[in-house]
Amino acid sequence: METTWTDRYAQRTRGMSGSAIRELLKLTAQPDVISFAGGLPAPDVFPVEAFDEASQKVLREHGSTALQYSTTEGYQPLRELIAGMMSEDGFEVDPDQVLITHGSQQALDLFGKIFINPGDHVAVERPTFLGALQAWKAYQAEYLTIPVDDDGMRVDELEEVLRHGPKFLYTMPTFHNPAGVTLSAERRETLLELADRYGVPLVEDDPYSKLRYSGQPQSPLVALDARGRGSTGEGDVLYLGTFSKTLSPGLRLGWALAPPDVIRRMVQAKQGADLHTSTFTQMVAYEVARDGFIDEHAERIRSVYRERRDAMLSAIEANFPEGVQWTHPEGGLFLWVTLPEAVDAAELLETAVETEKVAFVPGHTLDPTERIRNTMRLNFSYANVELIQDGMERLGRVLERVLDERAPATAQASY
Amino acid sequence: METTWTDRYAQRTRGMSGSAIRELLKLTAQPDVISFAGGLPAPDVFPVEAFDEASQKVLREHGSTALQYSTTEGYQPLRELIAGMMSEDGFEVDPDQVLITHGSQQALDLFGKIFINPGDHVAVERPTFLGALQAWKAYQAEYLTIPVDDDGMRVDELEEVLRHGPKFLYTMPTFHNPAGVTLSAERRETLLELADRYGVPLVEDDPYSKLRYSGQPQSPLVALDARGRGSTGEGDVLYLGTFSKTLSPGLRLGWALAPPDVIRRMVQAKQGADLHTSTFTQMVAYEVARDGFIDEHAERIRSVYRERRDAMLSAIEANFPEGVQWTHPEGGLFLWVTLPEAVDAAELLETAVETEKVAFVPGHTLDPTERIRNTMRLNFSYANVELIQDGMERLGRVLERVLDERAPATAQASY
Repeated sequence: METTWTDRYAQRTRGMSGSAIRELLKLTAQPDVISFAGGLPAPDVFPVEAFDEASQKVLREHGSTALQYSTTEGYQPLRELIAGMMSEDGFEVDPDQVLITHGSQQALDLFGKIFINPGDHVAVERPTFLGALQAWKAYQAEYLTIPVDDDGMRVDELEEVLRHGPKFLYTMPTFHNPAGVTLSAERRETLLELADRYGVPLVEDDPYSKLRYSGQPQSPLVALDARGRGSTGEGDVLYLGTFSKTLSPGLRLGWALAPPDVIRRMVQAKQGADLHTSTFTQMVAYEVARDGFIDEHAERIRSVYRERRDAMLSAIEANFPEGVQWTHPEGGLFLWVTLPEAVDAAELLETAVETEKVAFVPGHTLDPTERIRNTMRLNFSYANVELIQDGMERLGRVLERVLDERAPATAQASY
Repeated sequence: METTWTDRYAQRTRGMSGSAIRELLKLTAQPDVISFAGGLPAPDVFPVEAFDEASQKVLREHGSTALQYSTTEGYQPLRELIAGMMSEDGFEVDPDQVLITHGSQQALDLFGKIFINPGDHVAVERPTFLGALQAWKAYQAEYLTIPVDDDGMRVDELEEVLRHGPKFLYTMPTFHNPAGVTLSAERRETLLELADRYGVPLVEDDPYSKLRYSGQPQSPLVALDARGRGSTGEGDVLYLGTFSKTLSPGLRLGWALAPPDVIRRMVQAKQGADLHTSTFTQMVAYEVARDGFIDEHAERIRSVYRERRDAMLSAIEANFPEGVQWTHPEGGLFLWVTLPEAVDAAELLETAVETEKVAFVPGHTLDPTERIRNTMRLNFSYANVELIQDGMERLGRVLERVLDERAPATAQASY
C-alpha cells in the first residue's frame, strides 16, 4: 500500500498557508524592480565587525560551552542584560521572567501553543502583523479585529470586541507593523483599564521601540501595567522583544517577558519545540550587546532610518496624487498608504510591477478579515535615499494613471 | 479584574510537563557526583578552532548575508551538502527535499504539528527517545509501543500495533537512544514490508549513524525504502538528521528529509514557528562541514567514544553483580542495563546518589507506558575513561548491596 502523506495531515494543517508576503517577495524579486514590500533591516547597518570580534572571543574563551547543549530558559548573562535593558522607573524586570526565543516569532508560536484551543478567539488590530496570524493559524484561532487610526488602536471600538471574551488581545502599540502608527499615552491608559475591566490579558509585541526618529518615547504597556498594580511579577501583559532590528534578524534571537507560571509553561513547550536556542548565537549576541553597545548602535541605525523615513515622506508628498493618504511614523520600518476606496491595491501591485517596476505589500494580506483592499504597506528601511526617491516617483506615476481613470475620488483614511 | 493566566491555558498545555531527565540532571548536578545521566557529547571533541576560522570567514566575506533574514527552507549550500552526504548507491537525495531545522527536535515538533490530531495514535519503541514523546505530547498524541531487544525493534510484535492504524511509526533503528541497540538488516526488511502492507508511514530518527565503533554499517530505512520502490522522491519514510553529534549540539542544527508535499507543509509550519533557522549558524556550519571535514572529524570522535564504550563495558563486566544484563552497543552514546525485576531503578538512583555519588537515568522515564521500572540508561560519551571506571565501581557497589538484600534474583532482559 503506498502511503499518501496528504491524507494524513492533521486538521490544523488544512488552515495553514505560506506567508502571502514571502510569496509576493519571490514574484517581485526581479533585479530591476525597486521593492518596498519586504521588512528587511538595511544590511549596511549590521555591526559585522562587532560580531566578528565577539565570535572570536566566545570561541577562544568559552568554545566548549558555546558549542554544547544549554538550558531551555536561555543564556543567563543574556537574560540579565535584557532584564536590565527593560527595567525602568517603577518597573524592575527579574531575569527569571525572561525566556530567550528563536526570534520573537517563536514566542508568538509558544503563546499560541500554550493558550489557544481550536476555535478560540484572539483579538488583533486591523491591520496586524502577518507573523502573528501565521503562528496562530496553526492552533486554529479565530480573529476579532479592532481598527487603528493615526493614534493607534481605536479604543472606542474596543469594548465591543472585549465583550466577546477573546483569549487575549494582541497589539503592537509602538511603530505598528504595518500601519506605522503609535498608540497615544491616553489610549494606553484606556486600553489597560478596559482590558483589566473585561479580564482580557494583553500580548504586547515591541520589536521597534529603540527605532524612534522623532516624538516622545512611550512606556511599553507591560511597564505601565506593572506601575498601576505596584507589582512587577504577575502582570496582565505578556511582552515580546527582539534583537532582530537592533543587532541582526538572521541570528533569530528574541525574548518573552511573562509571569513565572507562564514562563514555566513556555519552557515546557519550548523543550518539545527545539530544546533551547542556539548557545553560540546567544553568547555571541551577549558579547556584542553588552556594555552599552546596543544603545550606541541603535543611535547609528536611527540616523540612517530617520533619513530614509524623511526621504520617503517628502517623495510621497511630492509625487502622490490628491486623494491618497498616508501615515507619518515616528519610528519603525513601515508606513501605510490609503488609496481611494475603489482602488484595489492587489491589482495596483500588478500594474506597478509591470509598468514601473516598483513593488509594495497590498494591505488585504495584513488584515485577517481581508476586507481592506485599498491600502498598501511601504518599507523605508531597506532601500537607500536615492532608490526611495526613484521608487516614489514611479509609484506616483502609477497612482496618477490609475486615479485619473477613476477620477474624481477622495480617500477616506482606512487602516 | 485580575487575569489568572493558569485559567487560560489550552487543553494541550495540561498534558505538558518538563523533561523528567532535565529535572533529574538538576538534582544530580552536584560537583562530586559522577553522572552518566546526561546525553552530552564530550566537549573536548568539539572542533572549536574550525568554528573560529569558519565564523571569521563567514563574517568577513558574507557578513551582511549571514546577519540578514533568509529562507525558511534553509541555506542552499548546506542543503546541498546534506543531500550529498546522504546520497548513496541507488538513493539520490534532492536538496529541495531537505529542510534545515533548529535541531532535529524541531523536526519532531513540525511532524507533530502537521500530522497529529488530538487522540491520534503514534507507534513508538519501548523504551524510546524522550524528546519525541515531549514534542508530541503537545499535540495530544496517544502511544502504542513495540518492545526492543538486542536486534532492535521486535518486529514479531509489530503487526499487533500496526493493526491499530497509528498515524506513523517512530523508530531509531541505529544505535537506539536509550537502548543502545541496532535494528538488524533482516528486521529492517521486515519492518519496511509490514509498514507498507499496513500503509503506516515511518519516521526514522538517525542522530548517531556516523558514530559507529564496531560492526557493519547499515543503510538507513529511508534509503532501503527508496531502493525497494525504485523512486527517491515519494517514499514512505520521513528521515531526521542532525549535526549535534558530529559538530556541535549547541548550534541547534538538524534537518528533515521528506517528500515534496510534506516539505511544503513543514515550511509553512516553520514560518509560523520561527521564520527560519539562524542564517549565521547555518553558514558557519556549512563552512566547517564542507570539503570532507565532517567525515574526518567523525573519525576523531569515534576514536574517543570507542575507547569510552569499551571502558564502560569492561568496567561493568568487572564490577556489576550477577543477575544484571546490559546491551553491547556498536555505536551511539548509550547503553541500557536491565536489573532483576524486583529492583526499582528510580529508588536505586536515590540510593546511588546518596551513598556513592553516582547517577544514571531510570528507564521508566523513557517508556510512555512507564511500566519498565527495573532498567537504567548509561551514557558513555561524556565522562572520560578514568571517571567511567570509577563510576562503574561505585555503581557496582550500590548494585551489590541492593541485590544482596533481595537475593536470589536473576534479570530477565527488559527494554
